[in-house]
Amino acid sequence: MNAPFLNDLRTSYSLIERFRSVRMQTMALCTPLETEDYVVSSMVDVSPTKWHLAHTTWFFETFIIKPYLPSYQTFDSRYAFLFNSYYEQAGARQCRSLRGLATRPTVTEVFTYRSYVDEAVENLFDKIDDDCQHPAWRKLEMGLHHEQQHQELLLTDIKHVLWTNPLRPTYRNDSASSLHTAFQRQRWEPIEEGLYIIGNAEDQFTFDNERPAHKTYLQSAKLSHSLVTNAEYSAFIADGGYQTPGLWLSDGWRMVQSEQLRAPLYWEQYNGQWHEFTLHGELPLSPTVPVCHISYYEADAFARWAGYRLPTEAEWEIVANRHSTQQINLQQISFHPSPASDDNHIQQLFGQVWQWTQSPYIAYPGFYPSCDVLGEYNGKFMCDQWVLRGSSCLTPPGHTRTTYRNFFPSDARWQFTGLRLAADG
Amino acid sequence: MNAPFLNDLRTSYSLIERFRSVRMQTMALCTPLETEDYVVSSMVDVSPTKWHLAHTTWFFETFIIKPYLPSYQTFDSRYAFLFNSYYEQAGARQCRSLRGLATRPTVTEVFTYRSYVDEAVENLFDKIDDDCQHPAWRKLEMGLHHEQQHQELLLTDIKHVLWTNPLRPTYRNDSASSLHTAFQRQRWEPIEEGLYIIGNAEDQFTFDNERPAHKTYLQSAKLSHSLVTNAEYSAFIADGGYQTPGLWLSDGWRMVQSEQLRAPLYWEQYNGQWHEFTLHGELPLSPTVPVCHISYYEADAFARWAGYRLPTEAEWEIVANRHSTQQINLQQISFHPSPASDDNHIQQLFGQVWQWTQSPYIAYPGFYPSCDVLGEYNGKFMCDQWVLRGSSCLTPPGHTRTTYRNFFPSDARWQFTGLRLAADG
Amino acid sequence: MNAPFLNDLRTSYSLIERFRSVRMQTMALCTPLETEDYVVSSMVDVSPTKWHLAHTTWFFETFIIKPYLPSYQTFDSRYAFLFNSYYEQAGARQCRSLRGLATRPTVTEVFTYRSYVDEAVENLFDKIDDDCQHPAWRKLEMGLHHEQQHQELLLTDIKHVLWTNPLRPTYRNDSASSLHTAFQRQRWEPIEEGLYIIGNAEDQFTFDNERPAHKTYLQSAKLSHSLVTNAEYSAFIADGGYQTPGLWLSDGWRMVQSEQLRAPLYWEQYNGQWHEFTLHGELPLSPTVPVCHISYYEADAFARWAGYRLPTEAEWEIVANRHSTQQINLQQISFHPSPASDDNHIQQLFGQVWQWTQSPYIAYPGFYPSCDVLGEYNGKFMCDQWVLRGSSCLTPPGHTRTTYRNFFPSDARWQFTGLRLAADG
Amino acid sequence: MNAPFLNDLRTSYSLIERFRSVRMQTMALCTPLETEDYVVSSMVDVSPTKWHLAHTTWFFETFIIKPYLPSYQTFDSRYAFLFNSYYEQAGARQCRSLRGLATRPTVTEVFTYRSYVDEAVENLFDKIDDDCQHPAWRKLEMGLHHEQQHQELLLTDIKHVLWTNPLRPTYRNDSASSLHTAFQRQRWEPIEEGLYIIGNAEDQFTFDNERPAHKTYLQSAKLSHSLVTNAEYSAFIADGGYQTPGLWLSDGWRMVQSEQLRAPLYWEQYNGQWHEFTLHGELPLSPTVPVCHISYYEADAFARWAGYRLPTEAEWEIVANRHSTQQINLQQISFHPSPASDDNHIQQLFGQVWQWTQSPYIAYPGFYPSCDVLGEYNGKFMCDQWVLRGSSCLTPPGHTRTTYRNFFPSDARWQFTGLRLAADG
Repeated sequence: MNAPFLNDLRTSYSLIERFRSVRMQTMALCTPLETEDYVVSSMVDVSPTKWHLAHTTWFFETFIIKPYLPSYQTFDSRYAFLFNSYYEQAGARQCRSLRGLATRPTVTEVFTYRSYVDEAVENLFDKIDDDCQHPAWRKLEMGLHHEQQHQELLLTDIKHVLWTNPLRPTYRNDSASSLHTAFQRQRWEPIEEGLYIIGNAEDQFTFDNERPAHKTYLQSAKLSHSLVTNAEYSAFIADGGYQTPGLWLSDGWRMVQSEQLRAPLYWEQYNGQWHEFTLHGELPLSPTVPVCHISYYEADAFARWAGYRLPTEAEWEIVANRHSTQQINLQQISFHPSPASDDNHIQQLFGQVWQWTQSPYIAYPGFYPSCDVLGEYNGKFMCDQWVLRGSSCLTPPGHTRTTYRNFFPSDARWQFTGLRLAADG
Repeated sequence: MNAPFLNDLRTSYSLIERFRSVRMQTMALCTPLETEDYVVSSMVDVSPTKWHLAHTTWFFETFIIKPYLPSYQTFDSRYAFLFNSYYEQAGARQCRSLRGLATRPTVTEVFTYRSYVDEAVENLFDKIDDDCQHPAWRKLEMGLHHEQQHQELLLTDIKHVLWTNPLRPTYRNDSASSLHTAFQRQRWEPIEEGLYIIGNAEDQFTFDNERPAHKTYLQSAKLSHSLVTNAEYSAFIADGGYQTPGLWLSDGWRMVQSEQLRAPLYWEQYNGQWHEFTLHGELPLSPTVPVCHISYYEADAFARWAGYRLPTEAEWEIVANRHSTQQINLQQISFHPSPASDDNHIQQLFGQVWQWTQSPYIAYPGFYPSCDVLGEYNGKFMCDQWVLRGSSCLTPPGHTRTTYRNFFPSDARWQFTGLRLAADG
Repeated sequence: MNAPFLNDLRTSYSLIERFRSVRMQTMALCTPLETEDYVVSSMVDVSPTKWHLAHTTWFFETFIIKPYLPSYQTFDSRYAFLFNSYYEQAGARQCRSLRGLATRPTVTEVFTYRSYVDEAVENLFDKIDDDCQHPAWRKLEMGLHHEQQHQELLLTDIKHVLWTNPLRPTYRNDSASSLHTAFQRQRWEPIEEGLYIIGNAEDQFTFDNERPAHKTYLQSAKLSHSLVTNAEYSAFIADGGYQTPGLWLSDGWRMVQSEQLRAPLYWEQYNGQWHEFTLHGELPLSPTVPVCHISYYEADAFARWAGYRLPTEAEWEIVANRHSTQQINLQQISFHPSPASDDNHIQQLFGQVWQWTQSPYIAYPGFYPSCDVLGEYNGKFMCDQWVLRGSSCLTPPGHTRTTYRNFFPSDARWQFTGLRLAADG
Repeated sequence: MNAPFLNDLRTSYSLIERFRSVRMQTMALCTPLETEDYVVSSMVDVSPTKWHLAHTTWFFETFIIKPYLPSYQTFDSRYAFLFNSYYEQAGARQCRSLRGLATRPTVTEVFTYRSYVDEAVENLFDKIDDDCQHPAWRKLEMGLHHEQQHQELLLTDIKHVLWTNPLRPTYRNDSASSLHTAFQRQRWEPIEEGLYIIGNAEDQFTFDNERPAHKTYLQSAKLSHSLVTNAEYSAFIADGGYQTPGLWLSDGWRMVQSEQLRAPLYWEQYNGQWHEFTLHGELPLSPTVPVCHISYYEADAFARWAGYRLPTEAEWEIVANRHSTQQINLQQISFHPSPASDDNHIQQLFGQVWQWTQSPYIAYPGFYPSCDVLGEYNGKFMCDQWVLRGSSCLTPPGHTRTTYRNFFPSDARWQFTGLRLAADG
């Protein structure tokens, strides 16, 4: 049996109610796991579940409790070293590659740590009450979004851990959504040439990298109504896509050869059929489901093969702003993407897979990282990564925005990543 | 004694005259070398001089002579494997790391190969005469620009080979320019907010990546009149720049630590003073000369420390178009950068060091690589690199354009790379 | 509280009684561990506790139950792949580096696997009764010795896992033996020049590499009465032993430099004093305890510094045969070595640390590996390793012999390894 | 045309005459090379020819001229850093991997260095005259043997450099010996069980590792009359030798898999036939010639496949002492091994290939390295290597002894290494 996942995170709730909900949701995601599953890191990008649970807690303890709740007694002073991720200004931290080797604190001790810090947050907010000008308020909101990011990472990482095991254990025993609709012809949403504004100017929480709003000039273009499907991607494979150097970026072709790439991560072919490892276990490939777990190199090569290109992040955002109610309608996460419907309008903007764009991840004009330690949040990663837009089936409801900028390097495949085609107008 | 370098490459010359001049110039650059110096590769990015001489020749043989001169007898059919660089569609090629291990063909045999192909080019152009519509015409022009790129690389690479040797041999025995002018206060050239056109639309030779011309919207900004100097960069070092993680991109900070970076490549400190290895040998650091041989990480960290930022490539190009006569005035290469003058206008746009910009190297809107084998020229490297603008002291005269886009990855330091500061307007 | 370790393994017991005892002992060793501790591998040489428990069980299942108990139903056919160590002829096996990444089967499932196979062994022996000519008899005896080897490895490995954790958890809460005796002057046991017989010729269980017994000629020599102590080894460090290249083998000096060796593994210096991480936690260094966790390189360099040499394995065995009752007197394992007594005779031959010899690990004259799959047991490792003699504080009682040949490569330090000095006679 | 190699090095000549002869011979070996061939290192074990020429010269300069010829002016003080190999006590030295990157000094400068030091040696010996008690005398003799070792290495290394080049240049244009005799049945030379003396006790030059002579006890055994041939080794390959894990040491099997070994180094199969790259160029494999360029792993696996074993070094030396005139009869080097004759006695002990033994390379009983800097000569390599006996076709005449101990690690294949079978008596 699987856990009843909690997803009802309306922003109308009070901040402390949202805090409780996010924290409970993280725990709910762990329900299918055995103690052993919490411990290991199956590759360098993957953090142990135990680490995610403790790190998100350390974030609240370090940036909210310690500065604003003077009576607080640190749970364990050695945890700062173990559970800092990359905040250089917050002190020394353990080498990332050692995360999967530390068997202590145990899972139970990490759960205790979570409860202890949760109680401290409750105490702090009893005092602050609803003073939303208090500096802890903004930081707590940041902490919630930070934990939601780690909810998605936790699932992405545990998928890789389970897949690494030759026994291929299943995360959820219910089957993946079987709602298969008819195959779509390519339909397009147009963008007129002209001057637009992108980036977030509203008085709500955003990450720093979504700001400031600024003008940008777009050539005329169009975006596909739906995401590239497994069937379409299989055609690329069958047509020799992985054997044709002219389709690939130079670095991508090198990766194809050195890692012997032949299909997306988690795909395996046997008994004359492609299969895909999912959080529901290993399943025959569904043709209408969006392709997932592909690198930027693969997304780019596919688009070139298809005669199209990837969208820019500005194109994607302009279109998404026209259809922003799509994000509101997401009520819960699912554990695998679903097919598009027959409707004749752009869809699958949110809640399926992160969509690679052809925009490198750099600062918006006028962006400067804030100066405190939380200023390390995003700016220092603005190098050699690409922007992904939308959200995935694992993204917690309430954690999507049309201006949201996700980012990964060109070779990342363990994320829930796919693509939407674009073309010049 | 040093060779009389030939630099008089006016575009008014005929194409075949320009061909002779470029080919002779490459040979002239080799005059100070011993036979042994032609053979080795001192690190993975560095190609042997022998390889540069043969590869540029193979380019003419493969793309111009073989297709258009039917009577041509291949010089040695095995050279295609040895001297192809990265043209996947032009057949198999030797692994890059083996370039420095092949002692044969000898330098003399490579010289013979050059003469043999040069003669074939002369024969071909006797027939074509001045039919500038002939398809070989455009390709020969491409071949000349290709060889000019390798002239610069040849010098950049041999500098690294000589430096690797504990004996620190000298390339040129004359001393570096000693024209030291007064230290400059920071002055700025403004850019108004608005819509601009960048990219090349003219009917002259350009690389594919400079096209098409297209509109772009710029916020108001300003560019420094001159390049950052050794004195300014020394102040950054003295202020603990290499010990302050908050100044660095995350990948950059990792490089600082893993490679123990403390100064630009080729700098060494002894007897209480910084020295710099140059093509004139090892010299005390000159304070007014532009800083050189720094990575993107270092340029970016310096700008952050100084309270400014790097320019975008669009900002740089807009300003350079206003001062495009600067490139015309370059009459010859020099072997080390020179200080700025006292003049109160923007300078050092060309002929000193390549200038890092904050623009990732990607396709312009509407750019698609051409479909033939030469279409591999630039497009497939559009990933994880930054654009550099201007030209360096090693760039051959006639090989500069305001629209020229050079590109290197973030950690490249063996190139002649420096920076110019920018700021929001 | 710590577990009551079972050590009463008299050989007078029946084989099935010894089987039960050995199997229970392995479980008893795990009592202090948390579930998380069973899962990880802290470096390439270290196997997870979970793997040791399953691998030793797989050994009985594969080599004893499956061939001789036809009614047996395999517990899980996928375990053969997961828990084979290096038996090429017994089928494919998981890459060693993945052992620490497989979170499933869980610890509980491994315990179930052990019970299941134990029951099958009981069933088999009900049938065999006391027919000690049955071929399963000899193999079960081999399996017991194999499991005893893994008992020692399990403790050695878990020590490294706990030490890797910055929290430095403790395996046993009782303190290490504090019986410190007076410091010993160097006394010697002589060996006369002449022809000797070494190797095992008796009708008891031995590993194949201890046979055949054969003649060997020894020069006159002498062996130290006791093991080198922490105090003596500290003097070597204080005298610059790790900074003097002339004391080291060439490969050893390279290791000293590349890994910055300054002391044995698990030693750390703070507050002006050396400390040692033990299974009782981190303790101040005891001067009279034998030095432990040193590589062959360190043992060899120490001996050269001291003006002596390491013994050959023949010298060691000749002397040990004279004092073979020492091994009988060992009643239980301890978790850290102990000081020598004041007695004026050779001591510490067994039960303290494995003693490096200067004998490479090769076949005895006339040795040929047996041809069945168990023939892979020892022969194929006879390359680039050294023989160690005696036994350590972790070696299970009943698992020692004067002819026993342990072996490790020159750089192994995570084993309980020390040394005894020798000299020409 | 090839150089007239000088090989007439009778020991009756005076020491200074032998010095001239050895030094000229080294130069003669370089005659077929181009300047470019002197510069590179084609893998980590291979030193450039230029380095061999300078290093052997540095040896005479450092250990003989500087201590005993006070008037000597150092040729270039920076050469000590460049051309020291591994003498820690003789000062800092260049990292081995940089040897192939230093283009200066040029080949011509190295030749000048040789002449300069040769003249100093002549001056020194004018003074010493024939005082063979002078300490320089013994060291010069060591220097000659050292240079003879490097003559063999120089050829071994240049073979690898030429083979690395896709053009496969030829060292000698004359063809390899074509004297093919009838295929041999296996015949054996017996050894009786008993006590023997091995090691060198005579008053002639030897390396330190051949001493002292000492007693050793041998079981009865027998050695094959001739070396294993290419035909025999081909049968091993055809029988799946490289696909049968049971034949291999564990480390050997790992190397077979990771490096995809299928045949000896320098073998290549095309047109349905094996070919072998030799110093005479690439030739079809000759069936009766001894197999060459195999690792210890391959020699050991072959012997196991054939049902025999490798000899011990003691067995080999006992037999060689009975036939020691074989070494005297060698008058010159050849560049590839030759077949055995039909004679019914043991042969090919010297002058064909180095013969792997099953004896690890360790100190003889009573051996202690001498204390001066030359004491580093052999002792510090006594770890993880195997003894090879005899000599190869490249070994200079006068450089062979029945007690000579060559040594290489298990995976070395670029040496001229083969095997002779042995069996228990």
